[in-house]
Amino acid sequence: MGIAERVRFPQFHNRIMDAAAAAALIPHGATVGMSGFTGAGYPKALPQAIAERAQAEHAQGRPYKINLWTGASTAPECDGALAQAHAIGQRLPFNTDPLARQQINAGEIDFIDMHLSHVAQHAWFGFFGKMNVAVIEVLGVTADGLLIPSTAIGNNKTWLEIADQVILEVNTKLPGAMEGMHDIYYGTAIPPRRMPISMTHADNRIGEPYLKVDPAKVIAVVETHGSDRNNVFNAPDADSNLIASAIIDFLTHEMQAGRLPKQMLPIQSGVGNVANAVLAGLLHGPFEQLLGFTEVLQDGMLDLLRAGKMSRASATAISLSAQAFEDFEKNLDFYRSRIILRPQEISNHPELVRRLGVIAMNSMIEADIYGNINSTHLMGSSMMNGIGGSGDFARNGYLSFFVTPSVAKGGKISCIVPMCSHVDHTEHDTQIIVTEQGLADLRGLSPKQRAKVVIEKCAHPSYRPMLQDYFDRACAKGALHTPHILTEALSWHQRFLDTGDMRV
Amino acid sequence: MGIAERVRFPQFHNRIMDAAAAAALIPHGATVGMSGFTGAGYPKALPQAIAERAQAEHAQGRPYKINLWTGASTAPECDGALAQAHAIGQRLPFNTDPLARQQINAGEIDFIDMHLSHVAQHAWFGFFGKMNVAVIEVLGVTADGLLIPSTAIGNNKTWLEIADQVILEVNTKLPGAMEGMHDIYYGTAIPPRRMPISMTHADNRIGEPYLKVDPAKVIAVVETHGSDRNNVFNAPDADSNLIASAIIDFLTHEMQAGRLPKQMLPIQSGVGNVANAVLAGLLHGPFEQLLGFTEVLQDGMLDLLRAGKMSRASATAISLSAQAFEDFEKNLDFYRSRIILRPQEISNHPELVRRLGVIAMNSMIEADIYGNINSTHLMGSSMMNGIGGSGDFARNGYLSFFVTPSVAKGGKISCIVPMCSHVDHTEHDTQIIVTEQGLADLRGLSPKQRAKVVIEKCAHPSYRPMLQDYFDRACAKGALHTPHILTEALSWHQRFLDTGDMRV
Repeated sequence: MGIAERVRFPQFHNRIMDAAAAAALIPHGATVGMSGFTGAGYPKALPQAIAERAQAEHAQGRPYKINLWTGASTAPECDGALAQAHAIGQRLPFNTDPLARQQINAGEIDFIDMHLSHVAQHAWFGFFGKMNVAVIEVLGVTADGLLIPSTAIGNNKTWLEIADQVILEVNTKLPGAMEGMHDIYYGTAIPPRRMPISMTHADNRIGEPYLKVDPAKVIAVVETHGSDRNNVFNAPDADSNLIASAIIDFLTHEMQAGRLPKQMLPIQSGVGNVANAVLAGLLHGPFEQLLGFTEVLQDGMLDLLRAGKMSRASATAISLSAQAFEDFEKNLDFYRSRIILRPQEISNHPELVRRLGVIAMNSMIEADIYGNINSTHLMGSSMMNGIGGSGDFARNGYLSFFVTPSVAKGGKISCIVPMCSHVDHTEHDTQIIVTEQGLADLRGLSPKQRAKVVIEKCAHPSYRPMLQDYFDRACAKGALHTPHILTEALSWHQRFLDTGDMRV
Repeated sequence: MGIAERVRFPQFHNRIMDAAAAAALIPHGATVGMSGFTGAGYPKALPQAIAERAQAEHAQGRPYKINLWTGASTAPECDGALAQAHAIGQRLPFNTDPLARQQINAGEIDFIDMHLSHVAQHAWFGFFGKMNVAVIEVLGVTADGLLIPSTAIGNNKTWLEIADQVILEVNTKLPGAMEGMHDIYYGTAIPPRRMPISMTHADNRIGEPYLKVDPAKVIAVVETHGSDRNNVFNAPDADSNLIASAIIDFLTHEMQAGRLPKQMLPIQSGVGNVANAVLAGLLHGPFEQLLGFTEVLQDGMLDLLRAGKMSRASATAISLSAQAFEDFEKNLDFYRSRIILRPQEISNHPELVRRLGVIAMNSMIEADIYGNINSTHLMGSSMMNGIGGSGDFARNGYLSFFVTPSVAKGGKISCIVPMCSHVDHTEHDTQIIVTEQGLADLRGLSPKQRAKVVIEKCAHPSYRPMLQDYFDRACAKGALHTPHILTEALSWHQRFLDTGDMRV
């Protein structure tokens, strides 16, 4: 099926052009809002055409950079190509591309690491300045000029509204039969005109299946024909399985104790292998008729849907392995009624996460003995990916888990440390920490009580005595609520920087 | 007016007793939920009677402690008396009493420092175990057995619901004419049965003017006759006035730039002298028909109401100086229609703070150059008061200010530091930092950009070169998103601990 069949709105036919011609419409210094969330639904042709243009300009000694705002991470053809061409000035709100990461840390890219639920509203409020162009991947345009969204919604609704001009990428490879799966909420507003969001269950549809755009703003329509980023998941390893079992045992126990309703609350799961393993654990767990209320639907959740353990899932993006995507495409009729894709301001909305009572499960880089969490920085200073939606869910969820293997780099890094080298989630937002060693339930504990349980349950045996020693000596310093030895608190990280090993 | 006139519900008349008799009903080890928020509406007789009982038990060599849960801070007659008697085991969620603080830091009291909007729901979910007794100050009981709330609502609705037994303190000194001022929302639920909260303006009434209690649970009714804690505010000093002006100028500028609606959004203001000065600044500022949506109504907001600059204010407590309380009592008819007192889960609710677009202004202990905020700990380890509601408002507000004078202890402490010694609000939640030196607008800035503006605008001149030197040397270490020198990041705090001065 070619672009003519996908673009059924006649007014757009004379705006069809190739990517290079469209890229020529984006000047140096432009702020460009692109689609894309966790390697799904990002534009596939324009970024590479912009990169080529940037390289040509740079070769002529002229500057060329854009400010790039997206939903979350994209892919090598987008962030990767633009970073390769040194074409990104400012970047928000999330990145996983290795080259872009390098430029972020080098200060070449000004990176703004944000709660994903904040992005659309802060852009709409005008806090980051004007958006010049939106480049949005869609699956097609209806005869009425409505846009059929792609595999991710992200901030597309807002980008289409606030951008001066719009370029559409029509991806003819991704299945047009996804039409009807999306739910775009058009009830948002700028204060003081905001109304309650009338969602009371994770699978409520509250919006419309199409994105809207003012046709007069559409300056180009470009055909692409490419798959989303192929997300490779490792088969769950022993550590991930231990983490998954600990969580499922805990949830079972909470239900028995009457602290969780008999019908399990909606599940949010972060991105990556450990998160995927937890979902795999639920496949064989005791819970039925699960609901997903999450930002990214990965393989693990698709498995739950297919197996009938999960009734419906709400997300802002579908980010699958190639194999899972094949299953998704083959069984679209099955999944269409079970998956709801929403704008990320809705998938991650504090109002909804709190109301629905979401069970939040997010991975982290490190936790300290008092329950503070670092999700973003290596050794205090190097940006990894960003906070993503973890804060939206951790702060507002009914229960909040942070998970990690207890060590990294073959044991050279302890993921439980005396003091986090960067804090993204404070002690006030952390309830349960899980490693392959065990689970620490921190609810209702003071910092000193927390330290005991985190060291005992979560630390790796090779670091447990070191942590206990630090804690004991910190306690001996005097009457302190959160005992620390400031000259040593970050010494484990410094030791790693100096010697490549946190161990003495 | 005595207790007989205040308690118009006949069924309670035979449960009237003195505080000592009521205290005898509370066993060692009990979890007691008390009323009280920012020195308002706390029980005045029972805590002292419990303290006497504890001392008598201790004199006999028997243990006696209670777990004490409140709305927020209380007063010398409550936290103070109980701490004096070593009668507190666990304490949540906030404390300002000096003796209790000492015992918290010593580890005698297990203190759980929480977001104030989380307290009622986590207790209701059962996360902290059972509540045995609620001790709630009220102004009276209607003929139908409904309770007329006092000067603070706090968590009283939830305590009355979840406690096995209830003791009422009827305060005959506080004005019974406050009847009708309160708005108790009874639409909350445990997930998955939660519904949207149908509030769209800060001054909407969505509940009922009375608290409900199952009469069968009421085991004692005790008369008290005492004022709330007298809150002494200093007249705004030069630094506070500079901070207030910077905020008002900024808001004016934002309005002119179209980033704030012409009708100013609702104001939240933290507790203390600086916050009070900002409100005093608004008294002479350009904004009219202000609305307050805050947790504590202090003198400054009362002045705004009286002057007609603020139309209505919503809070969970009225915490005034003796002089302002006199005015409040004298003009109750005027204030009754202008003040709405709500449960703290509503006054601080993320759903509402975000929907209403609250302008959040909170004080802090220190900020670091990258915009992380410490609201709770001195030198990384000693608890001051707690996070209170600052996180509820800062994360979800339309704009969020954190304010402090740039130095403390006569210049020996810089409130702008290389790295916060404890983080309560992360860089993701901080928008605007203000000191008497100036205002740093951090929206849309990367960490390195933030450091430049924080050092330039907010640091005290005596520390600015030291901060710039730290930042420059940290940047020189390599490609780092958030440059730090881990061996020095906390050295300023350590120097203060060693020498009493952060300066070299």
